Amino acid sequence: MTDQISRAWAYLSRVAEPPCPELRALTRRVGPVEAAERVRTGDVDDVIARRTEARRQIDCAANDLETLDRMGGRLINADDAEWPLLAFNSFCGVSGRPQAHEPMVLWVVGPAYLAGIAERAAAIVGTRAATAYGEFVAADLAAGLAARDAAVVSGGAFGIDGAAHRAALAADGVTVAVLAGGIDVPYPAAHAAMLRRVRGEGLVISEYPPGERPARHRFLTRNRLVAALAGATVVVEAGARSGAANTAAWAGALGRPVCAVPGPVTSSASVGCHALLRAGANVITRTEDLVELIGRAGELAPEEPRPASPLDELADAERHVYDALPARGSRTADEVAVAAGLPPMQVLGPLAVLELSGLVVRSEGRWKLARRT
Amino acid sequence: MTDQISRAWAYLSRVAEPPCPELRALTRRVGPVEAAERVRTGDVDDVIARRTEARRQIDCAANDLETLDRMGGRLINADDAEWPLLAFNSFCGVSGRPQAHEPMVLWVVGPAYLAGIAERAAAIVGTRAATAYGEFVAADLAAGLAARDAAVVSGGAFGIDGAAHRAALAADGVTVAVLAGGIDVPYPAAHAAMLRRVRGEGLVISEYPPGERPARHRFLTRNRLVAALAGATVVVEAGARSGAANTAAWAGALGRPVCAVPGPVTSSASVGCHALLRAGANVITRTEDLVELIGRAGELAPEEPRPASPLDELADAERHVYDALPARGSRTADEVAVAAGLPPMQVLGPLAVLELSGLVVRSEGRWKLARRT
Repeated sequence: MTDQISRAWAYLSRVAEPPCPELRALTRRVGPVEAAERVRTGDVDDVIARRTEARRQIDCAANDLETLDRMGGRLINADDAEWPLLAFNSFCGVSGRPQAHEPMVLWVVGPAYLAGIAERAAAIVGTRAATAYGEFVAADLAAGLAARDAAVVSGGAFGIDGAAHRAALAADGVTVAVLAGGIDVPYPAAHAAMLRRVRGEGLVISEYPPGERPARHRFLTRNRLVAALAGATVVVEAGARSGAANTAAWAGALGRPVCAVPGPVTSSASVGCHALLRAGANVITRTEDLVELIGRAGELAPEEPRPASPLDELADAERHVYDALPARGSRTADEVAVAAGLPPMQVLGPLAVLELSGLVVRSEGRWKLARRT
Repeated sequence: MTDQISRAWAYLSRVAEPPCPELRALTRRVGPVEAAERVRTGDVDDVIARRTEARRQIDCAANDLETLDRMGGRLINADDAEWPLLAFNSFCGVSGRPQAHEPMVLWVVGPAYLAGIAERAAAIVGTRAATAYGEFVAADLAAGLAARDAAVVSGGAFGIDGAAHRAALAADGVTVAVLAGGIDVPYPAAHAAMLRRVRGEGLVISEYPPGERPARHRFLTRNRLVAALAGATVVVEAGARSGAANTAAWAGALGRPVCAVPGPVTSSASVGCHALLRAGANVITRTEDLVELIGRAGELAPEEPRPASPLDELADAERHVYDALPARGSRTADEVAVAAGLPPMQVLGPLAVLELSGLVVRSEGRWKLARRT
């Protein structure tokens, strides 16, 4: 990419608040250099004029690219191989959501390869006001995804997001933080060190140019990218009003599985999760549940382990006869028949099977339960 | 009812392990006295002969009725007004479950009126190995049902069942314990005092005659009555193998709502509940959710309370402009326009609205956020 083209993309990234589908369409049609020139000179239609009016005189593209360069990052668009085309295809099917548009460019920093990540990733999101339970579960799921070569996408926030990023890093997994401000603006500031590690080993990405501060509406706009880059979105904890519910809504709108982790009904931090479950979200209790949703065909979650009982192998008749023996003491076959409500002839066979299985013991014509070892 | 008829019912109640649809059909056809006589003398078809062979010589009907009388109870059948006809109608639609049959008689002790109870009741069931969380939630739901004039049906067991019965009693509500043995056989023995209170204020019922001990298969058979007598069944806590899942399965088979309370995914006592939720059970987090399922038409659960924010009332444009103001310091209208990515003309209106709402303050041509009080 020549400097001129890069600078045009950087200029276009800042000049309209994303997503701006009209500007994106113009750029696809005439190319970034021509599009930037037209915006700068006001040679655009009314919609783009209005969307770019406030910022078209601002050109700090060279500075922005310098900042990006200093961080070792790259500015990618739909022409780049790294662009997650497949993942972003999901935006095509969304209607009724004004922000449901593919981004025009992404500012990306980190060694991971975005297009590859989006093929096997889950978003782990949730409330900033997480409980110890929520942070534990987020970390457990993230570590489990890392162990199964799946990336963990999240928003870099306090609480659930941070627990997920940190656990993925600790497990040498790949994690992606999608920011609601510039890639050089760590938010929250207290997560600066963590985000440095994320961009050192995974990816930090944003559709906002360097220096931009996150704002409330940008979090909501950003959430669509978190949902789009992940094969499924799981909300670990969310209060009655949580941004995580917005990410889950995006996942649903994009046709991706919406998932929630149940929690104590006595915990206000799980209210949002239970609302999602009530609305039909997938129940996630283990990493395997998530991998089943984002993984390759056939990666089914194994059955939950069930404690086994020696009675499992018994047929109904034998179990019925077994139940008719008293906890203490012994019974004759006739007494067993009465207790079981079966004809005497029908208890002898089952008693013999139970004796062979070592479950009952015969002694002097009477039967009793064998002591469990 | 004459003594002869009562004794015939009592005899029939014991002679075959319930449910025995063939014996029930015979009794409906020829009446209890004639049916009892035929069984006693062996004048019955092969099926009934086999089902009654072991016990037909046993006649302790007089004793059984004396026990019942001493406890102040009654033996009811489908001809009695107290028989929960409507509730038991649900057995008609069940296929593929050999035990899915209406009982022939019920041994009932307590001041409550069974047919009335079944019109507004929920079953609260769960593991005997309940956690403090589970017992708390069971008690909370039971107390809530009591406060809303709904009965609490359960199985009298340790753990969730006991917590539900006790809380209903404590709230002066009606609670019903369906036993898997005789009404005079408190099981578990440590619940004798509780069951005495249940039959003193609500109902203790069983389809097994006095003196009968519960056996494993009787618990499973009993569970169908718990499910049938309740408008909905909620499992509060259940391990991977819990009888509560069996009660829930009965509720489903009988066409009643199956419900489960979510819990921590780190708790093995909630594994069964999450399995039920995964299979489509209703999510129950509050009594209101249950009342909506068992209550009269229109008894909808109110919305969960949501914390309110002064920004809730704002239109999108105003919220967008509000977000463009910095947390500290002030901005000119033009600066706000750049930050918001809106034409300068489009920020003045929203700024005026925000000023009127007391959310932003103007001072010397600059705008800043009002301090939240």
